[in-house]
Amino acid sequence: MEKRIDTAVGKLQEFEAIFNPKSVAVIGASDDPAKLGYHVIKSLVAGGFPGKIFPINPGRKEVFGLRAFSSPDLVPEKIDLAIVVLPAKLVPEVLEACGRKGIKGAVLIAGGFKEIEDKSGEKMQEEITQLANRAGIKVIGPNTFGMFNLHRKLNASFTPDFSQMEPGSISLVSQSGGIAHLLGFLAQRERVGLGKVFGLGNRCNIDFAEMLECLVEDPETKVIAMYIEGLDNPRRLIDTAQKVRGRKPLLVYKAGRSQASDKASKSHTGSLAGNYEIYQGAFRQAGMLTVESSEELLDAAKILALCPLPRGNRVAVLSGQAGLAMVASDFCEREGLVLAPFSEDTQRQINELLPPLTIRTNPVDLGPAWYNAEAMRGIIQLVLSDENIDAMIFCIVYASINRHLTKMLIELFETESKKKPILTCISAPEGIWDDDIRSLQNVGVVNFSTPERAAQALGNLIRYSKISGE
Amino acid sequence: MEKRIDTAVGKLQEFEAIFNPKSVAVIGASDDPAKLGYHVIKSLVAGGFPGKIFPINPGRKEVFGLRAFSSPDLVPEKIDLAIVVLPAKLVPEVLEACGRKGIKGAVLIAGGFKEIEDKSGEKMQEEITQLANRAGIKVIGPNTFGMFNLHRKLNASFTPDFSQMEPGSISLVSQSGGIAHLLGFLAQRERVGLGKVFGLGNRCNIDFAEMLECLVEDPETKVIAMYIEGLDNPRRLIDTAQKVRGRKPLLVYKAGRSQASDKASKSHTGSLAGNYEIYQGAFRQAGMLTVESSEELLDAAKILALCPLPRGNRVAVLSGQAGLAMVASDFCEREGLVLAPFSEDTQRQINELLPPLTIRTNPVDLGPAWYNAEAMRGIIQLVLSDENIDAMIFCIVYASINRHLTKMLIELFETESKKKPILTCISAPEGIWDDDIRSLQNVGVVNFSTPERAAQALGNLIRYSKISGE
Repeated sequence: MEKRIDTAVGKLQEFEAIFNPKSVAVIGASDDPAKLGYHVIKSLVAGGFPGKIFPINPGRKEVFGLRAFSSPDLVPEKIDLAIVVLPAKLVPEVLEACGRKGIKGAVLIAGGFKEIEDKSGEKMQEEITQLANRAGIKVIGPNTFGMFNLHRKLNASFTPDFSQMEPGSISLVSQSGGIAHLLGFLAQRERVGLGKVFGLGNRCNIDFAEMLECLVEDPETKVIAMYIEGLDNPRRLIDTAQKVRGRKPLLVYKAGRSQASDKASKSHTGSLAGNYEIYQGAFRQAGMLTVESSEELLDAAKILALCPLPRGNRVAVLSGQAGLAMVASDFCEREGLVLAPFSEDTQRQINELLPPLTIRTNPVDLGPAWYNAEAMRGIIQLVLSDENIDAMIFCIVYASINRHLTKMLIELFETESKKKPILTCISAPEGIWDDDIRSLQNVGVVNFSTPERAAQALGNLIRYSKISGE
Repeated sequence: MEKRIDTAVGKLQEFEAIFNPKSVAVIGASDDPAKLGYHVIKSLVAGGFPGKIFPINPGRKEVFGLRAFSSPDLVPEKIDLAIVVLPAKLVPEVLEACGRKGIKGAVLIAGGFKEIEDKSGEKMQEEITQLANRAGIKVIGPNTFGMFNLHRKLNASFTPDFSQMEPGSISLVSQSGGIAHLLGFLAQRERVGLGKVFGLGNRCNIDFAEMLECLVEDPETKVIAMYIEGLDNPRRLIDTAQKVRGRKPLLVYKAGRSQASDKASKSHTGSLAGNYEIYQGAFRQAGMLTVESSEELLDAAKILALCPLPRGNRVAVLSGQAGLAMVASDFCEREGLVLAPFSEDTQRQINELLPPLTIRTNPVDLGPAWYNAEAMRGIIQLVLSDENIDAMIFCIVYASINRHLTKMLIELFETESKKKPILTCISAPEGIWDDDIRSLQNVGVVNFSTPERAAQALGNLIRYSKISGE
């Protein structure tokens, strides 16, 4: 299928001040660790932001060791991005000042707008939206934790710890700051590389549809993941997804299927969640991959970021321990994958390498090859080059006698992982094989903590390969 | 409901040699790290087994620094348990020697019996079963990784690393050694305390039903978890489960729902998996809790081991970040739980503690109390003492400004967690709050890595409270 080149190419340019600012003002920067303004300036400085940082605080000459200004107007240099950490009522005035200064991007951390019970919040949000639009300022928020772009060491949030993460090619757009943190910390623990992460909050003039238009053009983003509660204009997101269908994987985790959470959505980020089933259907029709939990979102994003797309749904399951092979096979079938028979030639050669003590057809129980790294290597190579097989799930459990196996796997998979998706479930005590698992992910093999999660992620990879091939 | 006291009280006595041996012989012990016999003796010795250990190896005077004997007959003292790490063909002779020596328990690690393609394997298994029965030897295996009992520092397996785990009150009976390892390592990483773990393998004369009869009497076991592939006599397990129904939680994860894994089951541990749906229905009718993944098995075991049983299914969701509350609420409703309204009195007092910027009914968004540990403590106490609420899920995400909160939670929950189940989803970067999460589990609060998993585990706790209350 020919990939469409849209008019949206210029979209990245519009987001330049947010994705890649050369200079950032922190309006409400503080030296007091009890204030959010302290954590925001710390995020930028300690995160190693390479551009200029201007603390704005009318009561201070210096904040966090940097010269402070009482207003953005007084900064003698150009400012690209403003991070605003002030109470809601001060935001309109600040946005006007930003407009005068020619600032093109803003992150509005303050809450107290459309999400509150009092009608005044909604009115104030309308006011700042108009102000921002008139001044040509793109706004992340209000009511957001902020955003970060690990490719530019830009941590425009109140959580300095995000700067410790390794950058990757997954971009996350989350309506909720809490979920952005949850997914960010899980990603860190499971060594999943995020690149750009946005907390959209109340979506004043940047919504999901526009983020999608933009990220689909972003060369640093390979996978787009979204956490959505409620949408003001669902049609716009669905139309955009349809337009960019198949260009990049777009994963969506939609909350608000229950009555209780639908109600919560309104007072969280200002929009009702709406009918869950209708959303899911429309999302799928537009080529979005819907997932059902935060773990599934991360697992699917990880495999889509690291693995080549398979040609079909024929999977081989190889396992050092038969129990894991059974569980993986159960979940593969549940995901609509096929445990296809090997070609005659492959099967004949496997039968030469494995004694008849075990199941040698798909799923293969490698048990008897436990001591024999060479037999294991031979079987893996045969299976990966079999025309009947599109992807492989390889499970192995540490026992102190098989310590040496992972070295062989890393060497072997380094050359093979570009051709077909290779998923592993390598299970070991804390501190054993952890480095090896990281090395595997560095050579394009994705590891999952259970066979069930591996099979589910492969299901999502194959669902996407169908969307992109249409 | 009155708890039945069965005739099975004597069952524990029958298992004394396996659960609590005073002396263990390792038949096939070796000093060569390339042999399983090395890893088995290492597991016992390095695991700190407090009883006597006798290596049996006809070619050696000493193994692993211990005096070795050429046959169990020659050991001058009583032996309770024999761990046999020899090829299948030597096992009958060894079992005869064990019988002569008066050994009452054996762990047969060797494979090559009923699970192999060749009919000779099945014949040999019949032979050893008859031998063992005649000699009154209870046999774990053959074709097993072994077993361990952390309460007695008895690691009778080939994986020394299991000795590093903290003992707990969950006993696991697994048909597959691979799955026992997978669950064991996951439990270690997630600080879930296992007590006794058995790899049943081919089940020569100890099957799931008998393990159940025994563990239900075991005072160190609070929760029984099973991983089952195929059963030779399903009726027996179901009848036993029915008989002990409601005395202890019995969790079952059944593999083999797919064609591929049904086939694999036969050659793994010698039994076809059978019709998955029929099994699930029969298991549920007998009061067993069926789960659908290895993660769910561990999560459910953890909550059942740590939490009191709730009186009903009315859950309160409190969250520092609304997104997590929404996701938790979605999954609560999916599990059949009810996000019940608070009593008028509770609601009135919450409204005094939280400003009207947020949702204050159930689920509660504690967002505005972020800086205010006292308001948060007050709301938690109100909710936990509300007559309308049976259990609580509390979610909080680390941000550098709320570092101090967990200390308050530990103090507060220490007194409250005996009354109603308290589940947390505390999300933080690696190394932050990890110790606090452990401290929470020590005071009876269970933590889950995502709100979805917390809600699912609570669903299982409530399903069990219905079974036990019938």
